Order: sequence, then structure tokens, then C-alpha cells
Amino acid sequence: MAMAALTNTRRVRIEWGDCDPMGIVFFPRYLAMFDDSTHYLFERALGYTKYRMMQAYDFAGMPLVDVRARFLIPSRFGDDVDIESQVGEFRRSSFVVEHRLRKGDALAVECFETRVWIRRHPDDPDAMQSQPVPEDVKARFAV
Amino acid sequence: MAMAALTNTRRVRIEWGDCDPMGIVFFPRYLAMFDDSTHYLFERALGYTKYRMMQAYDFAGMPLVDVRARFLIPSRFGDDVDIESQVGEFRRSSFVVEHRLRKGDALAVECFETRVWIRRHPDDPDAMQSQPVPEDVKARFAV
Amino acid sequence: MAMAALTNTRRVRIEWGDCDPMGIVFFPRYLAMFDDSTHYLFERALGYTKYRMMQAYDFAGMPLVDVRARFLIPSRFGDDVDIESQVGEFRRSSFVVEHRLRKGDALAVECFETRVWIRRHPDDPDAMQSQPVPEDVKARFAV
Amino acid sequence: MAMAALTNTRRVRIEWGDCDPMGIVFFPRYLAMFDDSTHYLFERALGYTKYRMMQAYDFAGMPLVDVRARFLIPSRFGDDVDIESQVGEFRRSSFVVEHRLRKGDALAVECFETRVWIRRHPDDPDAMQSQPVPEDVKARFAV
Repeated sequence: MAMAALTNTRRVRIEWGDCDPMGIVFFPRYLAMFDDSTHYLFERALGYTKYRMMQAYDFAGMPLVDVRARFLIPSRFGDDVDIESQVGEFRRSSFVVEHRLRKGDALAVECFETRVWIRRHPDDPDAMQSQPVPEDVKARFAV
Repeated sequence: MAMAALTNTRRVRIEWGDCDPMGIVFFPRYLAMFDDSTHYLFERALGYTKYRMMQAYDFAGMPLVDVRARFLIPSRFGDDVDIESQVGEFRRSSFVVEHRLRKGDALAVECFETRVWIRRHPDDPDAMQSQPVPEDVKARFAV
Repeated sequence: MAMAALTNTRRVRIEWGDCDPMGIVFFPRYLAMFDDSTHYLFERALGYTKYRMMQAYDFAGMPLVDVRARFLIPSRFGDDVDIESQVGEFRRSSFVVEHRLRKGDALAVECFETRVWIRRHPDDPDAMQSQPVPEDVKARFAV
Repeated sequence: MAMAALTNTRRVRIEWGDCDPMGIVFFPRYLAMFDDSTHYLFERALGYTKYRMMQAYDFAGMPLVDVRARFLIPSRFGDDVDIESQVGEFRRSSFVVEHRLRKGDALAVECFETRVWIRRHPDDPDAMQSQPVPEDVKARFAV
């Protein structure tokens, strides 16, 4: 990983429907927010949405193989939080996306997603196979 | 609507993650439960899952065009409820699925989904078009 | 209903995780978006979030008693849509919120929520009871 | 942790609404399934639902502080999978719940949740504080 990496930060409102009977975020909803954040990061890097990425590249998605999250401070409905996302590391056909969710200045949730770049198998549209991340994609994440 | 129609009833546990900060079901979760129930009803009628239906028929799905629900009694996490589902009416390329969710003997939620039977357009895989519901599909819902 | 009513419009990105195997929005997700939009409308009218509303008023929430939606045009991940929301009618202890979701100029989804204004029962914190909507709340929705 | 621990296994149907445009489970949905599985495990150990646990004990919930999951084999709508859950370790006020999701005999997803046992602060109902897991609760997980 180079010293500098493209970062995307976005503000997210915690909604009533994100929260559980304790009044705080039901944790799988955080993972969905981070998934969205990964797409915004790629959109910022590449200049188009995932839908158009799937048309521009021989690319079928970037499913997770591993995820880890730490929950430090709870959030409740009505809170506004900031999610900062960047690719921590590109490997051959996988990469790690790091997300840090902050309430004001405090780190509230931290998440590390390991994803693979896949395409549909040319001979079997139902089968997926991992692919090296294209060099021009990686290049867009350096700043 | 014939006098008798195939009915499917299933028991559903209300989960912690289905509930909102009031401790009761977040209403879009009911709609997801009813969507599941529609699939179970078709599986009961046809003898296979939606995934296999999509392979057996020139069939791409049954998206909703209209939904109506009434919420009479709230449910909270830990409750077990029963959802009874049936096709209320088959029209040419659409049909109405009725769901009744009961807590014990009491009607708690009632839902009417109007869905269309669609296939992918033969010349444009991204386009969908509505289709008459196959006669042999309809026949499986009479009892 | 007076001729003019406070309206709130917000842009929403359709996310990958909102979509089903057909690549279009899984319809219960629309209902969650409309629920969020109702909260934004009230926040615009009253000047604070639902969390603070629940502290400012003897108010425990606004659960739905009835919902109706029509789905006219599908949306897929990466689409940006606009949701316009307003209270269509205030009754004694219930009110109707109308949502219109547009893709560009085209009406794509329309939804009517009937909600009740409730408070916790003073003698039984687990019981809820409907309440007349406070006059000063209603007044904030006239323009 | 003793050599033997109470285990709960349940069958889960992968639903249409659990799946993303690739036709496979949207990964936050797995985390919701595991959260449900944790509740079923506690219900099996203690003999009652979380709702009744919250009344029987000075107990307000068991929020996560850390979660890790590995995704080995994708699942799609219509699949039936088995989730096997057990407490891997009880610490003072936290514990680790392990989930293994299998398709047939193959391990498809593995998840480790670290949770804390909390109660409401006696002097401030909005504040939560971690609590030692009650000894009689722990005892119910030995077999």
C-alpha cells in the first residue's frame, strides 16, 4: 500500500428502521452501510456507478470473503455519522476496504472487508471466477 | 375466484432484528415476510422453489404492481405468528395474493399483493414483459 | 386538507443491497425509504429529529395502521430517485402521509401511509394509546 | 470453556429478499441470521425467549463489540442451509458465540460474535453498563 490512498467520506443519518428495540443500530445494518460506502468509494475512483462498472469491465461483482468489525460506541436513530472509506491493500485478485465510522471526532465503528474481483465464467454464466483486479482500476486509487 | 383455493400456512418467529425502537415489528419487515410467504405458496402449488421455477418456465419473476396492508395488532420480538396465504384471483397476466397474519386466533395484519408474471424480452435481456400466467400454473392453485 | 401543505423532497441513491436477484429494488425497501422520508418531513416541519420529538412531546411513535403502494416503474442499483412527501390529511389521532418517488420526471412509485400518533399509557409503560395529534404539530405543516 | 458446550442447529431457507443482484445472499443478511441464531441458542439454554429474558434478569441486551465472518461458499435463493451455534467462550462480562453455516456437509460461512451482557444503568435508564454474565446463565450452556 502506498502512503496515500484515495479516501471517500460521506455523512449518513441513522434511521428509525436501522435501530433495534434497544434504540441503537442493529449491527447488520452497519455492514450494509459499509457495503454502500465501498460502492461510493469505487464510484469516486472510477467515475461511474457499479451498474456501469459491470458494463465497462468484464466484472460481475466484488463479493466478500472475510469481514471484521469492531463496535466501540453505539449510535441511535437521528444521529448523523461520518463514514470514511479507503482501500487498505490491493492483492492479486482481492483487496481490503477499510471503513471508519465516526460520531463527531470519536471512532464509533471500524470495519475491514476483504473482497474478491470476479467475473462470470466465459463458458458457464452461472459460475463465477476470481480475476486479477485490473491495473487501471488500481491506479485510480492512488492519489 | 373459485370457491376453494390452495392455502399455505406457516409459523414465523418475530426476531429481534425485525423490531424497531418501540420493540414492535418495523412494518417493511412484514412485507418481506409476505413476499417469502408468496414464494412458499407457489412452492407448495408447483412443487419446486422459485429458483427452479425460473428454470422450468420462461419466467423472470413476479414483481408487485400494487400492495395494500392493514396493521391491526402489533407484534414484538419473541412472538410466534401464523401467516396464511392464498391466491385471491388470477387475472390474465396478474394475480392477487392475500396474506393474513394471526397471533393465536386474532387477525393482526392483512396484506393484498397484486403481482405480474413476467419474462425477459427475447430480444433484450434487460427488458421485462408481462406474460399470461401459464394455465398449468393456475390449475395447481385449485383444490 | 388546506390547499397548500409543507412538502419535503429528498434524493435517494438506490443501493446494491436494496436490490433483488432481478437487479431491481426489493419492494419492502421502498417502504423503508418512505418511512425514512416521513421522518425527514416531520423533522423539516418541527425542526428536530424523531428522537428529540419523543422527548419534546408525550409521544411514543407514529405506527402505521394502513399502507398502500403502487409500483409503476422499476429502479435498479445506481439509480438516483427523488422522493416527495407531504401530509395529505390530518384526522383526529391519525394522518395520511403521501410519498411520490420519481425517476427524472416520471412517477415511479406512489405510497400512502395512514399513521396514528401514540403515547405510552401513563399507568402501563408497555401499553400504547392513540392521541390527538397536537394542534401545534399540525400547524407546522401548513404553508 | 469446558470441552462440551450446548449447541443449537437450525435449518434456514435462503429467501429471494436475502439475495442481491448476483442472486446470492447479501452478506449483511447472514449476520442477521446469526443474530437470530444467537437468540435461539439462548432460548434453548434458558428455556425462554429474549423478551422474557429481559424480564427475568436485570438484562437489557447483548450488543456486539466485535464480529468476524468468513464467506467460503455462496448461497442463493431457494437453498436450505443449516446454522450450528454455540458459545465458544464465556469471559467475565463478554462471551463469544460461534456460528457455522453449512450447505449439506460443506462449511459455507463461519462467524464469531463477541458480545457483552449489559443492563440499564440504575440511575440513568438511557445509559447501559456491562455486567458479569450471571453464573446460572453460564451453567445452562454446559452439557
